Amino acid sequence: MFPEEKSSQRSEGLRQRLLHKLLYCTGDMQHLHTLMQDQPLSVQLLEWSLRGVSGVIMVDNPVSGALILIALTLSSPWQAVLGSIGLLASTVTAIIIGHEREEVSRGQYGYNGMLVALLIGAFNSAGDWYWWLLLPACVAGATTTFVSSGLAPVLDRWDLPVSVFPFNTVLLLYLSCTGTNNPYYPNYPAQPLGAPLINNDTRLHVPKLLQGVVLGVGQIYACDALGPTVLILGAVLLFSPIMALHALLGSGIGTLAGLSVSVRRDALYSGLTGFNGALGCMAVGGLLFSLNWRTHVFAIVCAFLSSYADIAFSNVLANAGLPASSWAATLTVTLMLLVTGRALSSYRIHPRRNSPEQYLQTPSQWTENNTSSNTV
Amino acid sequence: MFPEEKSSQRSEGLRQRLLHKLLYCTGDMQHLHTLMQDQPLSVQLLEWSLRGVSGVIMVDNPVSGALILIALTLSSPWQAVLGSIGLLASTVTAIIIGHEREEVSRGQYGYNGMLVALLIGAFNSAGDWYWWLLLPACVAGATTTFVSSGLAPVLDRWDLPVSVFPFNTVLLLYLSCTGTNNPYYPNYPAQPLGAPLINNDTRLHVPKLLQGVVLGVGQIYACDALGPTVLILGAVLLFSPIMALHALLGSGIGTLAGLSVSVRRDALYSGLTGFNGALGCMAVGGLLFSLNWRTHVFAIVCAFLSSYADIAFSNVLANAGLPASSWAATLTVTLMLLVTGRALSSYRIHPRRNSPEQYLQTPSQWTENNTSSNTV
Amino acid sequence: MFPEEKSSQRSEGLRQRLLHKLLYCTGDMQHLHTLMQDQPLSVQLLEWSLRGVSGVIMVDNPVSGALILIALTLSSPWQAVLGSIGLLASTVTAIIIGHEREEVSRGQYGYNGMLVALLIGAFNSAGDWYWWLLLPACVAGATTTFVSSGLAPVLDRWDLPVSVFPFNTVLLLYLSCTGTNNPYYPNYPAQPLGAPLINNDTRLHVPKLLQGVVLGVGQIYACDALGPTVLILGAVLLFSPIMALHALLGSGIGTLAGLSVSVRRDALYSGLTGFNGALGCMAVGGLLFSLNWRTHVFAIVCAFLSSYADIAFSNVLANAGLPASSWAATLTVTLMLLVTGRALSSYRIHPRRNSPEQYLQTPSQWTENNTSSNTV
Repeated sequence: MFPEEKSSQRSEGLRQRLLHKLLYCTGDMQHLHTLMQDQPLSVQLLEWSLRGVSGVIMVDNPVSGALILIALTLSSPWQAVLGSIGLLASTVTAIIIGHEREEVSRGQYGYNGMLVALLIGAFNSAGDWYWWLLLPACVAGATTTFVSSGLAPVLDRWDLPVSVFPFNTVLLLYLSCTGTNNPYYPNYPAQPLGAPLINNDTRLHVPKLLQGVVLGVGQIYACDALGPTVLILGAVLLFSPIMALHALLGSGIGTLAGLSVSVRRDALYSGLTGFNGALGCMAVGGLLFSLNWRTHVFAIVCAFLSSYADIAFSNVLANAGLPASSWAATLTVTLMLLVTGRALSSYRIHPRRNSPEQYLQTPSQWTENNTSSNTV
Repeated sequence: MFPEEKSSQRSEGLRQRLLHKLLYCTGDMQHLHTLMQDQPLSVQLLEWSLRGVSGVIMVDNPVSGALILIALTLSSPWQAVLGSIGLLASTVTAIIIGHEREEVSRGQYGYNGMLVALLIGAFNSAGDWYWWLLLPACVAGATTTFVSSGLAPVLDRWDLPVSVFPFNTVLLLYLSCTGTNNPYYPNYPAQPLGAPLINNDTRLHVPKLLQGVVLGVGQIYACDALGPTVLILGAVLLFSPIMALHALLGSGIGTLAGLSVSVRRDALYSGLTGFNGALGCMAVGGLLFSLNWRTHVFAIVCAFLSSYADIAFSNVLANAGLPASSWAATLTVTLMLLVTGRALSSYRIHPRRNSPEQYLQTPSQWTENNTSSNTV
Repeated sequence: MFPEEKSSQRSEGLRQRLLHKLLYCTGDMQHLHTLMQDQPLSVQLLEWSLRGVSGVIMVDNPVSGALILIALTLSSPWQAVLGSIGLLASTVTAIIIGHEREEVSRGQYGYNGMLVALLIGAFNSAGDWYWWLLLPACVAGATTTFVSSGLAPVLDRWDLPVSVFPFNTVLLLYLSCTGTNNPYYPNYPAQPLGAPLINNDTRLHVPKLLQGVVLGVGQIYACDALGPTVLILGAVLLFSPIMALHALLGSGIGTLAGLSVSVRRDALYSGLTGFNGALGCMAVGGLLFSLNWRTHVFAIVCAFLSSYADIAFSNVLANAGLPASSWAATLTVTLMLLVTGRALSSYRIHPRRNSPEQYLQTPSQWTENNTSSNTV
């Protein structure tokens, strides 16, 4: 062999090894999961928890989970602590009430607990590092596991995932139970998204609006800082570029929907109008249906419906000072999974831990876009 | 043959042909439906849509649908336009998301879209011919199809029809989303049926009350004019005299129920207290159960329950400025379909497109009243 | 034989006969039920009704039912009359709509009717012996039977009991329908459990608090007098000492939960914070799961969840002037029955009319505590 050929082979090998290292962290990292099964329980629990962290945004990748945890810590260390406590409480409860290791290891019982603890922290008006808050964070986290476990057989009849129903239920219960003027656990009252009686200032600040679209992704974790939100987007990108794109698209659609019924300006700028759209768009566009132009259109429809429903729920629940959290996206996605029309139901993917990219290759369903640049 | 015999035969033939022409338009007109299957899609879509128009009042007859559309146009042309747009939007959406032609052709996906568009128009406080309203009428109409399609597999487990759940859901979402002081889509706030703090004027105006009973049937289409209401009643009569009678009976029961808990006088006079009773009474008395004296009693019970539930829902939802629309009748009829007591459940008719009259002849179920004058 | 032996044998026989007489009235008294089947219908109806009275507190024993009826009469004769009317209305309705004698005879269709009539009386602000109230008590009682009969096939899919869902539903409907300023049927508005804006008086009155724990059991029947409550507890003790203990334990837990989020003092003292906890604790601890240390812990968890959920529901529903009644316990117990974790679900007892004591003897499930003093 000639030396040039050898060198080119070596550099090719190096490139491939580098690519391998990067690809190692993408997708659902099933290989790591298999590897972990021989490790001690504490190490396994760490992997399960990190998968749980990423599960909030419908991702199943421990490295994404770690990135998101870093993002949350950057945004607010107290929130990161609270979220972790909630995550542990719900995961440990799942083990105690006797759930199969296989279910727990997929982070199934983690993300609801984390979310509810994060939102309890976000609505608490007693300030950061109010240590008594760890108590309701634990109790609420554990309660989500009971609700998850109880909802599963009901929803399973129609082949539906439990999704974030437990988080939404337990958050409403916690906030109604404590209220806004509780001496121990006071909360901020939730504001309706709908326009107040006095008119909005008429000029729209476009850069702030665009920032709001990006922040919509961070609001899934109740995080409204730009830097951490970009990191969260990166974590999603690692699992699946398709989902990252749909997250941004959905958040944009949510902002459009908000503009069309003239919601509060600060809700547009802080991303509060976007996150339900983002969740709806991500779920339909790739995660629960194999992606093609039809399901892409349905993802857009789902994002619009989620966003409008969120505005509706927010206006109604605000009468009792309660937030709409992600009820709208959860219900709309559930509705989409139930739709029996063949144009949608024939692309249904049964909930497994796979990134959308793995479904692009099925030639019978989506041959024409097979060579698209979206495939990782 | 003698000439007299010939002439009598001829006049007999003429009479029969006339009767045939009239009878041609009664019942569910299955013959027309069969005939239509060779026509171009646009003509078929017209038949489907007219069946959808009549489906609002649980009738399945395109001529009834045409009569009702005329009634609505007489009452308010703008409302007729809005309703038609909603109807088309929901029917076309059903075709797009891939529903079977058979289902769509029965008008299954039409009536919810029409109703939601009619009510969006009725609650809109921006006045008639506010063209921007076509946008939400289209979106809401299309959304009812998604909700219909998603609810169907859930309710199907208990053999329940989707009925007007989608309309009720989407209407509440639209009204909560836009609210009463939206700059683009302002709505009138809904008033509770319950008595206000200041006492009602003590004298009851009986003729107005009786007119309210008739208007109760028109209120199913959000129409409160007497002439069009009579036309709508005629359209129901064409499909089934039994249902027309039960509609009036139910509306009367609703008015009685309203009187017994002293609701607002203007609600009694405008027929708002009657329409849930009318729907409940029609559904149980003939449409979903084969008619006999037992189911007739249950129809009366259902009308009372629907009416009281409507007053209850209306009082609660008015706290958020929302109307109770036909939630009460829909839920009560669903409850009646679920009742397992043999005295009711053994007369259950499985939802098909037949007028109640066709079930009167089954001798095993109702021999004693077989010769009743109710049979058409 | 020696005379001493004879005398000791005789006294032994006497003791055994006495014990027999006492034991005759304990448990579910299946023997009486079998005996009754030859009696005339009116006598049977009495037994069914007394079982229905005891069914409110999840007991199935006609002697307990009679004791409870006496307790209610002592507390308020008018309430006892109202409750009996509601009980009869719902039982008779069940017979009319054609339910199997076997179901009716278990008191299945009685307790919801009784509860709704009792609560209609408790919320009525027109005073005792307001005879017009018998009308809604009858109608509401009959309606609970329709709701029971309709909910049964839905809940049956997941093997869930109908429980007091019908009572809770019909009570909310009645109170929303009539409201607080109805000229015929005025009601007291329900107060939220949550603390008012002005601070509670800081000193806690411990004896009143302990009395509140006991009163929590009476509040299940809307009774807040100490004497009758003790009699009700005695009636539960007759059926099952385990359930009586769990009732007190659950009520205590409810009071603790109330203290932890600082609810109104008078709610703590009157037992309003305790009764949902008591119901939740009784249902999980013995009635629906075979008792062992694990299910005992879950009973405590269920009592906490029920109590917190009750505070939450009460705060939300009070916005519309409505009470939370026993929604919290009903929903929490239903959730516990759905939980799929093996640590709980493997001890599930399928709803039959047996006292928890009969399940203590199954050695495969609970051998270690078999010799416990709890066994009757």
